[in-house]
Amino acid sequence: MKESLIKDIGEQGLLKIVQRFCPQDIIGDDGAVIPAPNSGKSLVVTTDILVDGVHFSDRTTSGEDVGWRCVAANLSDLAAMGASPLGITVGLSLPGDIPVYWVNSLYQGMSQCLEQYNTPIVGGDICRSSIITVSITAFGEVFPHHAIRRSTAKVGDAIMVTGFHGASRAGLELLLNPELDKCLDAAEKLALIQAHQRPKPRLDILPLLSKIQNPNSKIQTPNFPISGMDSSDGLADAIAQICRGSQVGAIIERSQIPIPPALNWLVSPSSVWDWVLYGGEDFELVLSLPHELAEFLVQELGAGAAIIGTITPGDEVWLRDSSGVYSDELLTMTRGFQHFSSDIARDN
Amino acid sequence: MKESLIKDIGEQGLLKIVQRFCPQDIIGDDGAVIPAPNSGKSLVVTTDILVDGVHFSDRTTSGEDVGWRCVAANLSDLAAMGASPLGITVGLSLPGDIPVYWVNSLYQGMSQCLEQYNTPIVGGDICRSSIITVSITAFGEVFPHHAIRRSTAKVGDAIMVTGFHGASRAGLELLLNPELDKCLDAAEKLALIQAHQRPKPRLDILPLLSKIQNPNSKIQTPNFPISGMDSSDGLADAIAQICRGSQVGAIIERSQIPIPPALNWLVSPSSVWDWVLYGGEDFELVLSLPHELAEFLVQELGAGAAIIGTITPGDEVWLRDSSGVYSDELLTMTRGFQHFSSDIARDN
Repeated sequence: MKESLIKDIGEQGLLKIVQRFCPQDIIGDDGAVIPAPNSGKSLVVTTDILVDGVHFSDRTTSGEDVGWRCVAANLSDLAAMGASPLGITVGLSLPGDIPVYWVNSLYQGMSQCLEQYNTPIVGGDICRSSIITVSITAFGEVFPHHAIRRSTAKVGDAIMVTGFHGASRAGLELLLNPELDKCLDAAEKLALIQAHQRPKPRLDILPLLSKIQNPNSKIQTPNFPISGMDSSDGLADAIAQICRGSQVGAIIERSQIPIPPALNWLVSPSSVWDWVLYGGEDFELVLSLPHELAEFLVQELGAGAAIIGTITPGDEVWLRDSSGVYSDELLTMTRGFQHFSSDIARDN
Repeated sequence: MKESLIKDIGEQGLLKIVQRFCPQDIIGDDGAVIPAPNSGKSLVVTTDILVDGVHFSDRTTSGEDVGWRCVAANLSDLAAMGASPLGITVGLSLPGDIPVYWVNSLYQGMSQCLEQYNTPIVGGDICRSSIITVSITAFGEVFPHHAIRRSTAKVGDAIMVTGFHGASRAGLELLLNPELDKCLDAAEKLALIQAHQRPKPRLDILPLLSKIQNPNSKIQTPNFPISGMDSSDGLADAIAQICRGSQVGAIIERSQIPIPPALNWLVSPSSVWDWVLYGGEDFELVLSLPHELAEFLVQELGAGAAIIGTITPGDEVWLRDSSGVYSDELLTMTRGFQHFSSDIARDN
C-alpha cells in the first residue's frame, strides 16, 4: 500500500491530525485564550527553532524523538528562568512529501514530554516549506523577583550543575557509530542514548526552589540569590555566558565535574572532556548561588549534581586540575557560536 | 566592495543586529520576563509562520515589507480576538548567503509596524537553514468574556467588515505586472501597493469595543455579543469559517461589499470578485454582531466598513445579488485550503 503523504491529505487533513494533540476548548480561533499567570507572577516567554539537518537528522532521530527534544529544549529554558510552564505554541513547516506518520509521531513525542509537566499545546501554525522546521514558543510564570538570570552571579558564589554532562553527546556517537557499544552493557548504552533522544528539562528543581523561597525556610535569604542558565549549548558555554552576563570570572575544578562513568569506556580522555565541556544538549542547569544553598540543592537532586567551582573577580574562566594531570585551561565562548561560520551548505 | 553576508558575521554578529531591535532590559537570558496581563484579563497567544516562496518573494517584497507583514499578520490575529498586544517573539531561520542588510531591513520593517502599536520584540531565536522562515508568536491580553470568537455568531446577527477587500491582491498584481498601472493615477496605485506591502492590523477597533464594553455605554449588552475573525485567508473563507464554527449559515448581499473603486479599472468584473472574495491578506475583521452595534462600528470606522449580510439558520453561505446581475452563489471553504494540495515543488 502506498504510504500516505502530507500533500495527499492537504492542509485540512494535517490540521485534523495536529488538533488531536491540543485541548479541544482552545483551538480553532485566531488565537488561544488561556489563563494569565497567577497573581503577582510575571510571564516568561522563550522561543527555539529546530531545523532538519542542523538540529536533528533522520539518521539518528525519529519523529517522536524530534518532538520530545523540541519540547524539552523549550521547557529547559523555562526551568533555567525558574518558571513553571503554562503552555506552548508549535509552528511547523514541512515539505509535502513527508509521510503523515512522521508528523503524527512528531506530535506524539511532543505530547509525551509535555504530559510529564502537565503542559498543553495551545496553538500553532502549519505551512509547507522545502525543509522541516519546528518553531516552539513556550510560556511560563515566575514571581519576577524569583527569576533566575544570567546577570546576577556574585563573587564567592558556588557554581553548581544539576546533573551529568557529556551524556547526550555520547548517546549521539553511539547512534552514529553503533560498533562503539561493545564496551558498554545494555543499561549503560540505553542511558546514554536516552540522554540524547529523551533529555529531561530540570523542572524538578522548581519545588526545591520553592522551599528556598518559602519564608519559613531556614535557608531563606532576603534577595533571591540564584543566577544561572541551562547547558543546552554546552557546560563551558553556560559558565562563560553567566560570567560574561554578570561581569565576573570563575574557577572550575576539573575533578569536581560529574562525568557519566560509561564515557571513559567509549573514547579517549581528551574526547571525554570535549564532550563534557562542549558536547551540549544535556539540558542541565548551571547555577551560581551561595554555598549553603548549593549544598542543599546538590543533596536533594542526587546523582550528577555537584558544586564544580567558584565565582571570582575579573572576567576569566579557568579550568583547574588540582591533581596536576591537566594544565590550567582558559575557557572561551568561541566554540559555542559556530553555527553560521561553518559551511552552510554542508548540512543542508 | 563585497557585500557582507550572514555567514561572514556569524551567529554572534547576527545576534548583535537582532538585539538592537529588542528592549535592552529583557534580552540575553534563557527567556524574557515580561509583565503579566492586567488583573482579570487572560493571555491570548497566536503563531504565524512565513516561508520564502510561499508567503513572500523577493520579486515583490523587500526585507522591510516582509518584516512589516509578518508582524501585521500576527497583530491582526490579536485584533481578531479583541486582544491588546503585549509583545512578540521572532524565530528567524535563514541561509548564510543572505546579505546582512536584508536581515537589518527585516527587523526595521517589524519595528516600524510594532511601533504603531507600542509593542516590543521580547525574544526569539536565530538559526541557519536552507530557506528563509520567519516564525512569530504574538501575545496579548483580553478580558476572557470579551474575547471575539468564531463560534458565537447568532441567527439574526449582522455580518460586517471593517474595511475594503481585494486591495492587497490588486497591489500584488500591480507589483507583478507594472504595465497594468496605466489605468490608475499615482495615489490609487500607491494605495493598492501599500495595502499589499503595509497592511494595517485593525487594532483601532479595540477602543471602539471598549466603548461597547463600558457599563455606562448606552449600547451595553449583558453578554458579549461579538463573534468574528480576520480576513487574512480571504473574505469568503472568513465568513465560511465563522458560520462553520458557529453552526449557522449566512446570506451575503453582493452589492453591499465595499470594493476599492480602482479595482474596476484594473481587471474584468469576474477577476475583481475573485480578488475581493478570495484574494486574502487584507487583514480586515469580519464580525457577526447585533445590527445596532454593527451600525455603531461602521459609523466610527469610516471608509470601507459596512454591513454586508445576515446570519441565518442552517449551514449554507449564500452570496446574493438583489440587482439580478449575478446569480446566487454558494460559498465553500475549499479554496482557502489549497496550500498542501498544490504542487509543493513549484514555489520552492
